[in-house]
Amino acid sequence: MNTRRDFLQKMGASVLMLKLGSISAFANVPDQIEQPYQGRVLRVAIMGLGGYGTRVAEAMKACTKAKLVGVISGTPSKIKEWQTKYNLPEKNCYHYDNFDEVKNNPDIDAIYVITPNALHHSQVIRVAKAGKHAICEKPMALNAKEGQEMVDACKKANVKLLVGYRMHFEPRTLEVIRMRNAGEFGKVMFFQGQCGFKIGDPLQWRLNKALAGGGSMMDIGIYAINGARYMLGEEPVWVTAQETKTDPVKFKEGVDETIQFQLGFPSGAVASCLSSYNINHLDRFFLSGDKGFAEMQPSTGYGPIKGRTHKGELTQPVTTHQTVQMDEMATIIFEDKKPVVPVNGEEGLKDLKIIDAIYEAVRTGKKIKLMA
Amino acid sequence: MNTRRDFLQKMGASVLMLKLGSISAFANVPDQIEQPYQGRVLRVAIMGLGGYGTRVAEAMKACTKAKLVGVISGTPSKIKEWQTKYNLPEKNCYHYDNFDEVKNNPDIDAIYVITPNALHHSQVIRVAKAGKHAICEKPMALNAKEGQEMVDACKKANVKLLVGYRMHFEPRTLEVIRMRNAGEFGKVMFFQGQCGFKIGDPLQWRLNKALAGGGSMMDIGIYAINGARYMLGEEPVWVTAQETKTDPVKFKEGVDETIQFQLGFPSGAVASCLSSYNINHLDRFFLSGDKGFAEMQPSTGYGPIKGRTHKGELTQPVTTHQTVQMDEMATIIFEDKKPVVPVNGEEGLKDLKIIDAIYEAVRTGKKIKLMA
Repeated sequence: MNTRRDFLQKMGASVLMLKLGSISAFANVPDQIEQPYQGRVLRVAIMGLGGYGTRVAEAMKACTKAKLVGVISGTPSKIKEWQTKYNLPEKNCYHYDNFDEVKNNPDIDAIYVITPNALHHSQVIRVAKAGKHAICEKPMALNAKEGQEMVDACKKANVKLLVGYRMHFEPRTLEVIRMRNAGEFGKVMFFQGQCGFKIGDPLQWRLNKALAGGGSMMDIGIYAINGARYMLGEEPVWVTAQETKTDPVKFKEGVDETIQFQLGFPSGAVASCLSSYNINHLDRFFLSGDKGFAEMQPSTGYGPIKGRTHKGELTQPVTTHQTVQMDEMATIIFEDKKPVVPVNGEEGLKDLKIIDAIYEAVRTGKKIKLMA
Repeated sequence: MNTRRDFLQKMGASVLMLKLGSISAFANVPDQIEQPYQGRVLRVAIMGLGGYGTRVAEAMKACTKAKLVGVISGTPSKIKEWQTKYNLPEKNCYHYDNFDEVKNNPDIDAIYVITPNALHHSQVIRVAKAGKHAICEKPMALNAKEGQEMVDACKKANVKLLVGYRMHFEPRTLEVIRMRNAGEFGKVMFFQGQCGFKIGDPLQWRLNKALAGGGSMMDIGIYAINGARYMLGEEPVWVTAQETKTDPVKFKEGVDETIQFQLGFPSGAVASCLSSYNINHLDRFFLSGDKGFAEMQPSTGYGPIKGRTHKGELTQPVTTHQTVQMDEMATIIFEDKKPVVPVNGEEGLKDLKIIDAIYEAVRTGKKIKLMA
């Protein structure tokens, strides 16, 4: 089993990605190497040059359908550095005061907003007004109201709005979804998503309510929400949630440390989820049906996703998530390709509505009904 | 690693059990074979000759400190069958109308009550009044009020009351508890207990509210409650719970199909638990600390418990749980041995108080505070 994987890895990322292009559509993967991409390349500027922005830029080096061509940053020295590192023309580099001028730049197709959560709303709306497609890192916004405004703004500007849901293109995740759709688990009854880690630096923006809009839920708990939806293939109709805070110095008012939450679905399936910035050794998805199960562990980390089902280990190719995501987004934007699990603004909005309900459930101690 | 286990298995159950006698006290396991048991043998009558009673009787064949010597049953043909099968003297066999006469039988030390849950309360009190030690299958009773009365009755009669918590003697479980006590997981923050299975025959007593006192929670959910307490080493201070019922024909009023419940502990640790009679592929315990983790899967099934920690696979000997339990109970009763995790009536009562709170949380939708 490892032979094929090793072989693919040795062939290098670019060929691997070409092969993967067809996987999300669940066509048979042909044995021969596919033809080089002939379609339109998505020219992307990244807004926000922090840790994750850097990860995306590095991953995009292996893209065949998308290309990093510009940046938007508030730090001139970072712009300089990226210009050199990624060979970016000066004219494609902006700061926050002047990036609306990207409107007149024909060499940028889309802007990937990878800034602190609280900025997504206004920045995506500015991107839309500049007539560029918006790719927005998750969480798309701080709440559903903001999210709806972003969806509306992009619709009005006739640009696409996509959310950086990299797991929606991950081959082993997609295989579990395929199996579920094919009925291989029978009637699915239960999902468990344990998402969290012990967060470091207490001064980072992710622990600042004004910038993050919350705590672990906004950053890592959202994976369990999103995962519950794509693993069960349903939209929840109720949510309950319980917050626990052991370190009120590190996790200030409005910054959640640990939230357990539960979701109920129309079929009767339930989800049991955990979001934490103070619990280690998590990152597990589990799906149980009356005929089988899937266990992904790790389930959403950047490294290789590992999984097994009642049929055995999942052996689909290991990918660099952000490389595949950006290549797939090119075809979604230019060819209107429909991914198996959506990554559009409406998809992001669904998660935000659930986050709103989770915070309401924590605040009130009540079961919150969700509109289907 | 397998060599030692294989060796022990080949040596046969009785020697294995002798060796295990010392494990629960965490003495070093000596390399040489221990001397045969010289202490007093616990002579046990089983009350209730159903599936689990049969399992216990079979397991007791390998006991060296306990011995099946009698039965109490309402079915004369079953008594006949057991007399032959286990070589039980006629004088040690009772039915429900006359078993109080066991008071005058010097050849029975203890009665193991393995009847439907709703009968435990009155039967254990009768056992106590007959001056015999009572071993009671879990759940000890239908609620804490009943449990308290049983504890009081046994205290008054000066007999021991033990609960059939077989996991408290399981070597791999005990190793995880030892590691936790030794600080090897660091500060433990999270426990997850997923307990359940898809139950069969809809006519069985376990799905009859009058006999079972509830549904999955009384039977299998209790493992997650008990496990949360012995894995975290604390008593919970709050509980929340959510019930889901998809099949109201099979799971009638008062018989819970699936309950998700959450526990909070004084240290700030939390537990996320599942109890179900309609979800397959469960039976997992997970413990997370800031320095390590333990995962048991299966965690409470009758077969071999499998587990791993951050240090690797757990390789303690596989045991027949009921054999070790009954041998250990002999020394608890006659030598006042203190097991690592108690199995006395007070221990059973703690779980019942939590079950009461879970049902109250389901009924009210509220977070229920528990007394420490």
